[in-house]
Amino acid sequence: MLSAAARARITVVLVGARNPSNIGAAARAMQDFGFTDLRVVNEFAPPFEASQLEASRGVENPGVAAEPLTAKSAVGAADVMANARRFDALPEAIADCTLVVGTTAIGGRGLVREILSLQAAAPQMLLAALPAEARVALLFGSEKTGLTNEQLSHCEMLLTIPLFAPEGARHLSMNLGQAVAVCLYELSREGFENARELPAIHEAAATAEDRERLTQLLLDVMQATGYAKRFPANSRESVVRALTLQLGKSRDEAATWLGLFRHILRKTPTSEQ
Amino acid sequence: MLSAAARARITVVLVGARNPSNIGAAARAMQDFGFTDLRVVNEFAPPFEASQLEASRGVENPGVAAEPLTAKSAVGAADVMANARRFDALPEAIADCTLVVGTTAIGGRGLVREILSLQAAAPQMLLAALPAEARVALLFGSEKTGLTNEQLSHCEMLLTIPLFAPEGARHLSMNLGQAVAVCLYELSREGFENARELPAIHEAAATAEDRERLTQLLLDVMQATGYAKRFPANSRESVVRALTLQLGKSRDEAATWLGLFRHILRKTPTSEQ
Repeated sequence: MLSAAARARITVVLVGARNPSNIGAAARAMQDFGFTDLRVVNEFAPPFEASQLEASRGVENPGVAAEPLTAKSAVGAADVMANARRFDALPEAIADCTLVVGTTAIGGRGLVREILSLQAAAPQMLLAALPAEARVALLFGSEKTGLTNEQLSHCEMLLTIPLFAPEGARHLSMNLGQAVAVCLYELSREGFENARELPAIHEAAATAEDRERLTQLLLDVMQATGYAKRFPANSRESVVRALTLQLGKSRDEAATWLGLFRHILRKTPTSEQ
Repeated sequence: MLSAAARARITVVLVGARNPSNIGAAARAMQDFGFTDLRVVNEFAPPFEASQLEASRGVENPGVAAEPLTAKSAVGAADVMANARRFDALPEAIADCTLVVGTTAIGGRGLVREILSLQAAAPQMLLAALPAEARVALLFGSEKTGLTNEQLSHCEMLLTIPLFAPEGARHLSMNLGQAVAVCLYELSREGFENARELPAIHEAAATAEDRERLTQLLLDVMQATGYAKRFPANSRESVVRALTLQLGKSRDEAATWLGLFRHILRKTPTSEQ
């Protein structure tokens, strides 16, 4: 069984979900499978607060019919919704996360990065959630577009739920609540026995915030040395973020890279900026 | 491997589903995982015909907003809905089925029959669907009550989706669409013949030689910028090699790092070497 402690270190992040009923449905799936930490990235407060309000209403006064869609979707998910947090931007939402995993439908995005099947990704996520200081974020995009390339660039691992693709199918995507349910089912499916036997990770893992700091500093280095001017295609933020995702798996190593990049910046004439 | 033919021999039966949007959501999950045979047992025609009508509308005239709930739930599920059949009573709906499987939440029903986990039941269902004349029915009850004892009595096998049950939990049940999605995911989990292959990694992997070149160049950068003098422990060759092992998983990325480090070297005053 997936221990309650490890389960609590897996966070569901809904990025740009527009429909309160979908947020409620995701919360209900979390409740069903015993996950508790829900974060919603949305510039606009209403959808989040509407679903939160209605989920709490459902508990305090279950006989009163709230706005039917959300109240139904979030049945039993009031605890999850009550603890859910809204963020204005993705980097803040994942700042404390040690592994950031993006969900994506396959096809048409021109991604060159490897996309794991849910079945292949789940054991890696469970392993990453073992250390006490770990936090694994599982990101779901908006109902309409999924995660954008920019949002995917924050992810160290990409996964997809293998869907049936008939000939000529162009657009594969799942209902948001169903996708969350399937992912959390898979994470709960085998339990933790296998993961526990694997060697423990003793090094403190770097957080998304550590890595984002690296990304920004590396961008500065590219500017200051004139590299960005000469190789603009290699210096786009999403490309640089992909580079730094490989840096500093541990906090110690991230600190070394940060120190070196700062050092380079200090020594570099900035005339080419 | 679940062949398309065997998949066509697995039938989803919704017994007493009241909400057209839930029927639409189940149809969408079926479409996502490549299942085609949906049967709805309902004394009253309206919910079924409403969801069928709206699913077909969505296809014929996608610009026209139908009743929003169902139209949304059944996105991409028009084919499934168009072929769906309504029955007045359960026995008729499952008359041609060679194995009837009921889904149920655990607890409180006083059932003495064995209930398999979804994981344990799925291989038996797949095996039962192998013969050409087979038909396996998977039954889901109404949103409110689940399958009744009478309905469960028609089932040769009972399964449950293992849910997280906190202390004192009385009522465990899933959203209908989510439950259908999770069951069909499990049935498809081992792979599809027709599933689109996961994108291959076309990028050439970096070689040990590429990485060693990176190590040496990074050592040079550390020397040239004075970092090595200031942080000697971080600048030992073995430490730097550990850092570069994470760089440039692909040759393209390794080339980017090499280019950047060379650029930095050219721009850095070498006075501290």
